Amino acid sequence: MKTLNVDLGPRSYSIFIGQGLLGHAELFDAGLAGNQVMVVSNETVAPLYLQSLRQTLGDRDVRVLILPDGEQFKTLDEVAKILDALVGARFARDCTLVALGGGVVGDMAGFAAACYQRGVAHIQVPTTLLSQVDSSVGGKTGVNHPQGKNMIGAFHQPACVIADTDTLDSLPDREFRAGLGEVIKYGLLWDEDFFAWLEDRMPELLARDHNCLTRLIYRSCEIKAEMVSADETEDGIRALLNLGHTFGHAIEAGLGFGTWLHGEAVAAGLCLAADLSARLGRIDRSDVERVERLVASASLPIRAPGELSAERMLELMAVDKKIKDGRLRVVLLGAIGKADLDSDFDRRALEETLQECRDAA
Amino acid sequence: MKTLNVDLGPRSYSIFIGQGLLGHAELFDAGLAGNQVMVVSNETVAPLYLQSLRQTLGDRDVRVLILPDGEQFKTLDEVAKILDALVGARFARDCTLVALGGGVVGDMAGFAAACYQRGVAHIQVPTTLLSQVDSSVGGKTGVNHPQGKNMIGAFHQPACVIADTDTLDSLPDREFRAGLGEVIKYGLLWDEDFFAWLEDRMPELLARDHNCLTRLIYRSCEIKAEMVSADETEDGIRALLNLGHTFGHAIEAGLGFGTWLHGEAVAAGLCLAADLSARLGRIDRSDVERVERLVASASLPIRAPGELSAERMLELMAVDKKIKDGRLRVVLLGAIGKADLDSDFDRRALEETLQECRDAA
Repeated sequence: MKTLNVDLGPRSYSIFIGQGLLGHAELFDAGLAGNQVMVVSNETVAPLYLQSLRQTLGDRDVRVLILPDGEQFKTLDEVAKILDALVGARFARDCTLVALGGGVVGDMAGFAAACYQRGVAHIQVPTTLLSQVDSSVGGKTGVNHPQGKNMIGAFHQPACVIADTDTLDSLPDREFRAGLGEVIKYGLLWDEDFFAWLEDRMPELLARDHNCLTRLIYRSCEIKAEMVSADETEDGIRALLNLGHTFGHAIEAGLGFGTWLHGEAVAAGLCLAADLSARLGRIDRSDVERVERLVASASLPIRAPGELSAERMLELMAVDKKIKDGRLRVVLLGAIGKADLDSDFDRRALEETLQECRDAA
Repeated sequence: MKTLNVDLGPRSYSIFIGQGLLGHAELFDAGLAGNQVMVVSNETVAPLYLQSLRQTLGDRDVRVLILPDGEQFKTLDEVAKILDALVGARFARDCTLVALGGGVVGDMAGFAAACYQRGVAHIQVPTTLLSQVDSSVGGKTGVNHPQGKNMIGAFHQPACVIADTDTLDSLPDREFRAGLGEVIKYGLLWDEDFFAWLEDRMPELLARDHNCLTRLIYRSCEIKAEMVSADETEDGIRALLNLGHTFGHAIEAGLGFGTWLHGEAVAAGLCLAADLSARLGRIDRSDVERVERLVASASLPIRAPGELSAERMLELMAVDKKIKDGRLRVVLLGAIGKADLDSDFDRRALEETLQECRDAA
């Protein structure tokens, strides 16, 4: 087992990564605030891991809430159901929510924990590659609004994150690859060596080699933790983590949440961000091709979907949260392994990227 | 104008108290994060003060949302309407919500500000005595759940609080008196001199003498700010502010929110807390009578309503947030001007208080 400490002063917490962690009671003991535990999971994950988790939680007062599976259910209404269950169980302020599932379950359970009695403890038990490398780190919780992704939420740090790599064995191939989209993002924005390592190890990773996966999750979390620690509420450096996301969110919202997986949309978004960076003269065309090659080697999309016109994409991007003083800000590349934020770029270049980097309609 | 600084490190803010402040543009300028402003008000307050506020806000991009008036509308559904309006207006992260109204408007607008894009700025413009002395100070935001008051919410500090005492002139008498319930609480839990001053000045206060009101609001906010600064998220000393509230919340929930005003329920709760403290031998019976006399002099109730049996009150109190490890905690008195928290008291005394201190059914 590897342990990573996320340093956030009084809100610091640990991420535990390794095989068989669902059975390690002592990891849970340290994070539970009291005897009352509400496990939030979904229809897909619960049949696989709920029993094992309940056993580990022992004879505590454990309640379970099973949500429908899918990004389209990441809504305020579903969070209201979690809150109803907590009030219905008469859970007190020293209760703990345990999120067992992917990013959607984690975001919703975390947001419910942030709002219930103005904030109770929660433990994240991410069971997808995407949530292990991304959404369980950083304290972002929340839900989608019909008109925009993650528009409603809170910053609320977990008591700990328990990433059991065994749970990845049951992950459908498409979801596994989607997770690699976020992983590629970390290399691309922060660490060229890690990017090169991914180019080198893609075959082993796709075969889900456990040693490679542990290294991949650890390094991804480490990069994210480093950036989050420097900037807990996203005013500066943390915004770089949105590389590819302004494009990606527009794709997800435009197609309807759940049509493309988040990691797929981000993967295409990385390629669009690279293309835009090249058009602005910040990187070479060969760098763009290198990004596209790695994304394609994970069988992830390198273009926006044909059904979304450039105009529609622009419209969708205008609702995104990365807007300041009415100006659209996009994370751009200065090199492979080096991202920065810009709101002062040539809008025509953006329109060209949106026009050129999409599949045939 | 008097200014009180609430010291919360990076979340510090100022409370401005005085006449005519709605017209002071410079106070708003300092608190507004950007050009986009969403004023949240209600059907009662908006016709009186909205025009004046809009004038003060000048040529900014100002939107207005008018909510129904009343505690029964302090729900997650109404907050969702504010969030819909923000998304619909495409407001960015640097927008500001301005809460123009009483505690209900302030709690909901503050909670929407806490959740929109994981936190945007808000300015509180309280227009009732209760909200000027209480709910606009301390960063508590949120809504009720059908099964419990303020069960859903967040801690989210305002950019500033602007308490214009002119707005109290239009306040209905019943609401004005309800506000005095919270004011009496501050004296009772923290400052015997202030309690004695209230005994002395009740006639002038009921006549709404502006000098007396300014002093009253300032001292009430000062006491609350002192306690909040010492304990921002309510683990210790801040819990004392709940004096009378465990009883009061039970009354409000039991009768249905909005039947008794919050301040009325708290006033009765203060008398019950005093009675319980006397039964436990912590204060003299004469102290209880002194509390009842002051509460009655403000024409506020000194008993729980007859239609709520002692059993029903106990049941309702068990859902309250002031529970730790399954034990009910109640704020008790050691003297007039001195409160402390106890979960280790004789339950029979509590049952006696609930039995004795209620009106005939």
